[in-house]
Amino acid sequence: MFERKMKNMADANKLLLTSGLITYTWGNISEIDRLTGYITIKPSGIQYNRMAWDDFVVVDLDGNVIDGNYRPSVDIDAHIEIYKAFEHVGGIVHTHSPWATAWAQAGRPIPCYGTTQADCFFGEIPITREMNPDELGADYERNIGRIIVETFRDRDPMAMPSVLFRGHGTFSWGITAMDAAHNAVVLETAAALAVRTEMINDAAKPLYPEMQEKCYFRKHRKHAVQEQVMSE
Amino acid sequence: MFERKMKNMADANKLLLTSGLITYTWGNISEIDRLTGYITIKPSGIQYNRMAWDDFVVVDLDGNVIDGNYRPSVDIDAHIEIYKAFEHVGGIVHTHSPWATAWAQAGRPIPCYGTTQADCFFGEIPITREMNPDELGADYERNIGRIIVETFRDRDPMAMPSVLFRGHGTFSWGITAMDAAHNAVVLETAAALAVRTEMINDAAKPLYPEMQEKCYFRKHRKHAVQEQVMSE
Amino acid sequence: MFERKMKNMADANKLLLTSGLITYTWGNISEIDRLTGYITIKPSGIQYNRMAWDDFVVVDLDGNVIDGNYRPSVDIDAHIEIYKAFEHVGGIVHTHSPWATAWAQAGRPIPCYGTTQADCFFGEIPITREMNPDELGADYERNIGRIIVETFRDRDPMAMPSVLFRGHGTFSWGITAMDAAHNAVVLETAAALAVRTEMINDAAKPLYPEMQEKCYFRKHRKHAVQEQVMSE
Amino acid sequence: MFERKMKNMADANKLLLTSGLITYTWGNISEIDRLTGYITIKPSGIQYNRMAWDDFVVVDLDGNVIDGNYRPSVDIDAHIEIYKAFEHVGGIVHTHSPWATAWAQAGRPIPCYGTTQADCFFGEIPITREMNPDELGADYERNIGRIIVETFRDRDPMAMPSVLFRGHGTFSWGITAMDAAHNAVVLETAAALAVRTEMINDAAKPLYPEMQEKCYFRKHRKHAVQEQVMSE
Repeated sequence: MFERKMKNMADANKLLLTSGLITYTWGNISEIDRLTGYITIKPSGIQYNRMAWDDFVVVDLDGNVIDGNYRPSVDIDAHIEIYKAFEHVGGIVHTHSPWATAWAQAGRPIPCYGTTQADCFFGEIPITREMNPDELGADYERNIGRIIVETFRDRDPMAMPSVLFRGHGTFSWGITAMDAAHNAVVLETAAALAVRTEMINDAAKPLYPEMQEKCYFRKHRKHAVQEQVMSE
Repeated sequence: MFERKMKNMADANKLLLTSGLITYTWGNISEIDRLTGYITIKPSGIQYNRMAWDDFVVVDLDGNVIDGNYRPSVDIDAHIEIYKAFEHVGGIVHTHSPWATAWAQAGRPIPCYGTTQADCFFGEIPITREMNPDELGADYERNIGRIIVETFRDRDPMAMPSVLFRGHGTFSWGITAMDAAHNAVVLETAAALAVRTEMINDAAKPLYPEMQEKCYFRKHRKHAVQEQVMSE
Repeated sequence: MFERKMKNMADANKLLLTSGLITYTWGNISEIDRLTGYITIKPSGIQYNRMAWDDFVVVDLDGNVIDGNYRPSVDIDAHIEIYKAFEHVGGIVHTHSPWATAWAQAGRPIPCYGTTQADCFFGEIPITREMNPDELGADYERNIGRIIVETFRDRDPMAMPSVLFRGHGTFSWGITAMDAAHNAVVLETAAALAVRTEMINDAAKPLYPEMQEKCYFRKHRKHAVQEQVMSE
Repeated sequence: MFERKMKNMADANKLLLTSGLITYTWGNISEIDRLTGYITIKPSGIQYNRMAWDDFVVVDLDGNVIDGNYRPSVDIDAHIEIYKAFEHVGGIVHTHSPWATAWAQAGRPIPCYGTTQADCFFGEIPITREMNPDELGADYERNIGRIIVETFRDRDPMAMPSVLFRGHGTFSWGITAMDAAHNAVVLETAAALAVRTEMINDAAKPLYPEMQEKCYFRKHRKHAVQEQVMSE
């Protein structure tokens, strides 16, 4: 029943691998079926490059396993929180990718230095606040999701489909798992470009606001809801 | 009719891909037939690594589609402006490559620190001025081309076959699309070397003028028109 | 008799090669059978990528060759010292990997900037003291092992399965050679991330202690012996 | 007659390519037969990755072509000067490799920060003086060779088998072309490690002299002639 979905996921998975975003078991990918609320997610502890399409696990929004031979990724609760809060999100990718993770560890949002980032992300890519010691208990993974949602209290997650999780790694999302994987690759590209930009000019300036708007809305006519706010 | 040209383009395209200059659909490549004025260009929104030779599109210098199953790249108007102004240019490549794009984002021309750059480019690789907000409208892509042409008002585009487009990426050109792709690869190599040079010595000095002349004219006897000016 | 062990080693070896940790003959890998005290180790002077599984050499804890067609790696005495002192270690990997070796050359331990490192290493990755001139004689390799053991006088080698050898390279260990190779890959990933973290923010802060504990013990329930000490 | 030699060269050539030291036609490789004085060298203007073993050219020490279908590399005169001055050198490699070339452009010798460099090179890797404008004429390539020889007036070229040519690239040599290629790969590895070492610690210190001696003579018993000088 979930075969086609699992095969789609395997394609998105392959994109992450060939783009160099994944080492070992770090990171995970999921997709939700909004009609049933069922989430297909990477199994726990299986290396990405050894995973077959039918290793994926299906769970419901309460985390109960519906189908599959493995336990779901330990980060399933973070994914569930995001799906519950961001109603247009259909797929999520979590990585410890080489460049974006360095920004997460450095504790800085990624400035929007060029059109590569601006075409896909509307503004600088945000970073979460630090987790509190009292958020490290049994609800650790769920709190990761909650802190991401908190970070987007005044942001549109569809116009900013990625976040840096401070001291940890990245989360990206999109309409589908493949769209989320695409956004994760753009995030990584923008993260690497931004480091190099600051190496070349430590006083580099972000694109001015009208240019950021131009780039984003040239590629994202669908999210025109944002246009008015920004154009003021 | 355009089959052989399209296949040549596919070869140039492959060089860009295997050299790591292209991610996703970012970037485009074109070649002009100066007899007919017809331009063969990458189609819009097709990923480079999925493109077949017969996906290319043929347009005239007014942008009318002459042949092909897709719309031309959205940057076609930038290419047209360059072909109109630079009469010896036969091929154009646009990239968001990892190192040269960082220079474009940092807002600095690339100093000529060594013979690798000097063999191919006569002097430092220039960067365009910032686009004005009133250049972001319907003529956005055409203005990209115009600003490039403006940057070369006092330069010979055949002795400096690349430019950094500020906050965006790179444009390279040459006698053919393959020649343009070659210049794009040298640009990227020089851009990476220049970053590393400044990492090692933040007071690094460019080659002195006579050395730059020696390198360039050792490889480019054909452009000897420049020699006199520089030797003074 | 040692065929199965040698084949396991060849797998671990392959992981090191495909992860880009090895150039030429630099580095070596070994595994001990604690029942017999026999150590299987890479032969001396054979390039990693030309090594067949039956090129491995078997020696006892006094360095006598038990089986194999080659001499053991010149670093065998360093391995022997580590096996004698760290009783739970079953495999050892030595590399001159691109990023961790740079930390060893720079003379700094690697701060724990993120969960990628914290999941595998409990705290900052230590660096040995400088070798003294009187340690450079015939016992040079044995002294390398002794200095590593000295560095862990107040550390649990199973909770910190790697060390930077100052001015030289890395040593990693684990339950098996494959586990040691895994730890070497994580070390290299963490080393590269830490450099980039400091490039982005030269005042970057390590994870706070409770977060480091959470990450480590989430993945290493087995080493819970440490938990009490750290939680105080 | 030169078939076996040409095939050996093709192997050395392949090592350079797969090690990422070569882009396009930049760089060249040669080997001398000391009995006849004949030099086998890469042809001019042929891309490395398209070269067949029988594309190599054979010249004598006056530069006369003895065998082959192409003209020799334009740098043949630099090679000839080195072969004439360094009597134990049997092979030479010239590259514009990514990291060592950056040191050449930055105008700094590479400090000996670790055993990776010290195992192969005795001390810091030197850089040539700047070429004078009056050395840029018809004798340009020959002057490149002369300046390299001048740099080794007080150095043993067999204990320091590489040099950075200021503002240009690298020259490495050895007993054979394959040995020279090996040294070029170690040079590149050491050059990259040294950049990263300074990124991590801008006050990094080279290995102390006794350690440098230990590393070098542990691997190079044959050049023991140097030992006495250094041990004083």
